[in-house]
Amino acid sequence: MTDQTSALTHEVSVWLSQFGTALDRKDWSAAVDLFGEECFWRDLVAFTWNIKTLEGKAEIRAMLAATISDVQPTGWQIAGTATDENGVTEAWLTFETAVARGKGYLRLKSGKCWTLLTTMTELTGFEEQCGASRPLGTQHGVYKNRKTWLEQKSQDERELGDITQPYCVIIGGGQGGIGLAARLKRLHVPTIIIEKNSRAGDSWRNRYKSLCLHDPVWYDHLPYLPFPDHWPVFSPKDKIGDWLEMYTKVMELNYWHSTVCLNAQYHEDTQDWSVTVEREGRPIVLRPRQLVLATGMAGMPHIPQIPGADRFHGTQQHSSQFRGVGDFCGKKCIVLGSNNSAHDICAALWEQDADVTMIQRSSTHVVRSSTLMELGLGRLYSESAVKAGITTEMADMRFASVPYRIMHRLDIPVYQAIAQRDADLYERLSRAGFLLDFGDDGSGLFLKFLRRGSGYYIDVGASDLIADGRIKLHSGVSIQRIQEDSVVLTNGTVLPADMIVYATGYGSMNGWAGRLVSQEVADRVGKCWGLGSATKKDPGPWEGELRNMWKPTSQPALWFHGGNLHQSRHYSLYLALQIKARQEGIHTPVYGIGPMHHLV
Amino acid sequence: MTDQTSALTHEVSVWLSQFGTALDRKDWSAAVDLFGEECFWRDLVAFTWNIKTLEGKAEIRAMLAATISDVQPTGWQIAGTATDENGVTEAWLTFETAVARGKGYLRLKSGKCWTLLTTMTELTGFEEQCGASRPLGTQHGVYKNRKTWLEQKSQDERELGDITQPYCVIIGGGQGGIGLAARLKRLHVPTIIIEKNSRAGDSWRNRYKSLCLHDPVWYDHLPYLPFPDHWPVFSPKDKIGDWLEMYTKVMELNYWHSTVCLNAQYHEDTQDWSVTVEREGRPIVLRPRQLVLATGMAGMPHIPQIPGADRFHGTQQHSSQFRGVGDFCGKKCIVLGSNNSAHDICAALWEQDADVTMIQRSSTHVVRSSTLMELGLGRLYSESAVKAGITTEMADMRFASVPYRIMHRLDIPVYQAIAQRDADLYERLSRAGFLLDFGDDGSGLFLKFLRRGSGYYIDVGASDLIADGRIKLHSGVSIQRIQEDSVVLTNGTVLPADMIVYATGYGSMNGWAGRLVSQEVADRVGKCWGLGSATKKDPGPWEGELRNMWKPTSQPALWFHGGNLHQSRHYSLYLALQIKARQEGIHTPVYGIGPMHHLV
Repeated sequence: MTDQTSALTHEVSVWLSQFGTALDRKDWSAAVDLFGEECFWRDLVAFTWNIKTLEGKAEIRAMLAATISDVQPTGWQIAGTATDENGVTEAWLTFETAVARGKGYLRLKSGKCWTLLTTMTELTGFEEQCGASRPLGTQHGVYKNRKTWLEQKSQDERELGDITQPYCVIIGGGQGGIGLAARLKRLHVPTIIIEKNSRAGDSWRNRYKSLCLHDPVWYDHLPYLPFPDHWPVFSPKDKIGDWLEMYTKVMELNYWHSTVCLNAQYHEDTQDWSVTVEREGRPIVLRPRQLVLATGMAGMPHIPQIPGADRFHGTQQHSSQFRGVGDFCGKKCIVLGSNNSAHDICAALWEQDADVTMIQRSSTHVVRSSTLMELGLGRLYSESAVKAGITTEMADMRFASVPYRIMHRLDIPVYQAIAQRDADLYERLSRAGFLLDFGDDGSGLFLKFLRRGSGYYIDVGASDLIADGRIKLHSGVSIQRIQEDSVVLTNGTVLPADMIVYATGYGSMNGWAGRLVSQEVADRVGKCWGLGSATKKDPGPWEGELRNMWKPTSQPALWFHGGNLHQSRHYSLYLALQIKARQEGIHTPVYGIGPMHHLV
Repeated sequence: MTDQTSALTHEVSVWLSQFGTALDRKDWSAAVDLFGEECFWRDLVAFTWNIKTLEGKAEIRAMLAATISDVQPTGWQIAGTATDENGVTEAWLTFETAVARGKGYLRLKSGKCWTLLTTMTELTGFEEQCGASRPLGTQHGVYKNRKTWLEQKSQDERELGDITQPYCVIIGGGQGGIGLAARLKRLHVPTIIIEKNSRAGDSWRNRYKSLCLHDPVWYDHLPYLPFPDHWPVFSPKDKIGDWLEMYTKVMELNYWHSTVCLNAQYHEDTQDWSVTVEREGRPIVLRPRQLVLATGMAGMPHIPQIPGADRFHGTQQHSSQFRGVGDFCGKKCIVLGSNNSAHDICAALWEQDADVTMIQRSSTHVVRSSTLMELGLGRLYSESAVKAGITTEMADMRFASVPYRIMHRLDIPVYQAIAQRDADLYERLSRAGFLLDFGDDGSGLFLKFLRRGSGYYIDVGASDLIADGRIKLHSGVSIQRIQEDSVVLTNGTVLPADMIVYATGYGSMNGWAGRLVSQEVADRVGKCWGLGSATKKDPGPWEGELRNMWKPTSQPALWFHGGNLHQSRHYSLYLALQIKARQEGIHTPVYGIGPMHHLV
C-alpha cells in the first residue's frame, strides 16, 4: 500500500468510526456534522425500505431520527482501500442492520461526506443459497420413495397457481420480469410470471427485424448468469430473445407464457390480490400477496389521433407493430417521430429500397454509438473496465452512487466532449434541417432517459442517411391530417404516402395500473418514471428518484419494475429484497414515500 | 513480494532464461542438463501436435531434436510469482511457438526441472473472438438488403450439410460432443453434431431416474459458460440435461438431433469422409474432413452371454436401459455388478421397496462422496479453491501438470488418509462380505478411472444398505445360468428373480470405430483409454497417456473424444486446436504416435 493509499484509507476508517459512534449514540448533530454543506445520502432499502436520496443535512438528520431505532446499523467498515478521484476520497464500505447486511460507497471532500450510498445486499437469515451454501442437489443416503428433482419440480409447477398460491405475481415476462423472478427464485419466493407471448424472448423477437440492442453487452448482463465472453457487443434482438428463453428455463422460473392478465383487484381485508388471467384460453384466478407490473417502462403504445387516419388506403402501424418484413421497394413510407425506433425503422426501410421520409416534430438528442461507448459508458461498462477488475456489481454500485441531483454536473462535460468530437456529424445534421439538442441543460442521454425516457437516438448509421438526404426529412412540423394516399403536414406540405409508421412513443406505466387494476388506483399511485427535474416532459416538483420504480407505491403490495437491462438487473435486487422481507414478516417501515403526480 | 517469493521467482526466471537460450542454440545437452535425473515433460499439442509425456532426459532430448525446427519456441516467461510446495518450486509460464501461444507449469527440485507441462492455448492469427475482440453483433452503418443475425443463422443452418459441407462431424451429442462443438464454433470450424436422441441432454435424461452426477459442480463446468453459483453440488440428471440443451442453443451449435450415423468411410484420395446419417428418417451423406467419435468413453453396453437368459420370464435390462420407473414393490431384483451404476440402481430399487440382491463378481473400490470431495478434489475443485482464486482453467492445468507415471505417488497417501477416516465404513462393508480394494497399488479412484474406467463406487448411500444387509449381497461369484424365474450363481446358490439388471459395463470406444467405420480401421487404431499400467484391466506396455484420446490415431482424420465432464472440458481445447490447425493448413507434424494395442 502506498503512503497516499494508506492515508486515504485511514481517513475513511476514521470517518466511518466517528459516523458509527454518532449513530450508536443517536447523536444526530454529531452525525450530520460529518457531512459537508453540499451532501447527499442515497439509500437503497437499507435504511428507508425505500429508494430515496436525502439531500442536505436537514433531510439526513430527519431520516436518521425516523429510522435509526428500527435499522440499528452497526459494523461500519471500509472494504478494501480508499482511492483519490480528483481530490475526492472514495471508498467501498460494509455495514449491518438489525435485519440485513449492506454495502455502500462513500465520497469525502476535505474530510466531510459529500455523497454516501447505502444499499441492502441480503437479509440476515434469508441469504441466497449460493457458493459455499449452494444446495447439495441430491440427498445423500437412502430414503424410501423419495422424489427426484424432476418429480418435485414437475409437481411444484403443476400445483402452483392451483393447489398452492404464488406469493408474488409478475405481469410481463420481458427482461425485467425475468430478472426479478430469478432473484425471487433464489430467495425462495414462489412467483409466477404472466406473459402474453408464446415464448420467453418474444417481446424482443416481435420487434422490427433489424433491431439490435443499443446498449453494449457489459451493460446488459442478467443477474447470476453473465453472457459468455464471445457475446457480441450489441446483441441482435433474436439472439437476446433466445438468451432470455434459455435463462427462464435454467433458472427454473414459473413462466406462464400465452397467458393474459385480465384484471387485478386488491383486497384490503385479506391483504392480497385477485389476479384474473387467461392461460391458453382457460381463466384462472391467482391470489398473490404482491403484484409487480413489469410491462415495460414504455407502457402502452401511444398513437396520436390524426384526422383522416381512418380514410388512409395504405398501411398504418405503431413502431411496436413494425416488423420490417415485406416488399418495401419504391414504397413511400412516412415515419412520424425521431427517436431510436424512428431512426432504426427509417434506416431499415431505406435498406429495403423504400422511399423514406422522417417527420421530426421536435428536437432530438443524437449521440454516436461508438462515441457513447467510449466517453459515456467506458469507465464502468467496457472490456477495459473488466480488465481493470470492475465487476458488473461494482459498476452498478458506482453508477448508483451518484445522486441524481448532481449527475448533470458530471455528464455535461462528457457531452461537451462528445459534441466536439462529432462536431462534423452534428454540423451535417443541422445543415439537413435536423433539430438537435443535448437535453435542456446539455447533460445528454442518460439524464434524458431518466427524466422522460425519450428524446434521443443512439446513432448506428441512420444519421448519415438523414444528413445526406437519403432519408428525407421534414422537421419542426407534424402531420395535420391524413388523406387516402397522402399526409398533410402542419405547414401545408402534402406528402404522398403508401405507409405511415407512428414512432410516437408509449404511455406511462401508470396506464397499465389503470387498465389492469382501476383508474382509481392508477390515480392514487400517480406517474411512474421521471425525476421531477422541471425540464421538458419531466415537470417538477423535484423527487430525486424515479417515481414509483422498484419501491413502495401509494397502493399497498403494488410494484412497478422496468427500465433498461442495466436497471432491471440492478434494481431487481432491491425490489426482490423488499418482497422477500414482506414474505418473511420482517418489519419494513417505509420512510418518505414520495408525493404522487397525476401527470400521466 | 516476500523475500522467499522473490528468490523462488528469480530461480524460475533464471531457469526459463537458460532453457530458452539452450533451445535457441539447439543445444540439447544444455537443455536436458536443466532437468533432474527423474524428469517429465508433458506436452499438450504445443511441441508434439500430440498428447505426450516424455519421461527422462533421453526422451526429452529426442523430442526436442525432432520438433524444435518446426516449433521454434520463444519468449519463455514466468507468469506471476513462483511458490514453494513442500520444497518443490512451482510456477506458471508462458511461451510462443512459430504458430501458437502456450502456457505451462514448471516444477523445480533443487534447481532442476522435475516436471514441465507445455500446452497450446491458441493459434496465432486464429484466436477466438472474445473479450476485447468479440464481434460487434450488428454492422453499424446502412447497407442495402443486409441480412439480420437470424436470417444469416437460418440460412447457414439450412445450407450446412446440404449446399455446404461441415469441416468436422462429431458423432455423439452428449457433454463431450457439445463442449467440443462449442470450441470449434468459437474457432469458426463448421461442425455438425450427430445425435440419435431427440433432444440435447437426453443421454442424461434417459438414465435411471435417481441419477445425480457423482462429480461435484466445480469439476463439471462446460467451456465458456460456467454454471451459476447456486447450481447444486451434484446435478440431478434432468437438470444437467436441461443445461446441455440450453447450452447447444445459446452457443448456436449445429445439433442434428434424431439423427443416426449409419457408417463412415475415409477416402484416401480426397482425404475426407463419407458419413452416412439418417436424419429424421431421411438419409444424408456428409463429406467432412475430420470425424470425431464422441460416443461416450463407455462405448457400447456390454451384456454377458449367460446360458438360459432367453428363457427368463422376468425383465432383463442393461444398466443403461434401466429407468427406475415402475412398480418394484416386493419384486425380487438381481443386480449383476458392483460399480457406480450397480450401487445406484440397487439403492433406487430398495427405495421403491424392491427385494434387492447385488452380485459382486470382483472387488470394488469404494470411496465416500463427502470424503472424496474433501481429501481428493478439494484443493483444486471446491468452493474454497474458488475463494483462493483458483479458476477452473488453473485447476485443469494444475491437474494436467502431474505426469501419469508418478500420479500414484501423490494419490496413495490421500487414499491412505481416506481409508483411515472411513475405516468404520470399510470395516462394516467387509463384515458384510463386500470385496474391497483401493486399486492394485492403493492409488484409488482417479487412477482406476484412467487405467480401466471402471471398478469403483462413489458412495452416496448404498454402501450403508449393503453393510447392514438391506441390500443383499453375494460376492466373489457370478451368474452361471438363468432359469425361468431364478438365477443360479457360480457357487450353486439359486436366487428367485423377477428382474435382472446387468450393470456390467461397456465395451471400448474402439467398438464404435468397428461398427461405424470398419473392423480394419478399428484394428489399426487399437484400444482406446487406459495408460498401459500393467494393472488389472490395463495391460502394458506403458503408454503414459490415455490411448487414442483427443490426439491423432493411426487412422488419419479420425479422433476420439470423451471422458468425464472435467476431461471433456479441458481436453476438448487441445482437440479443437488440432482440428483448427488442419483446417487452416498449418503444418502439424505429429511426434510420437503411440503403438496400438489390440486389447479391446
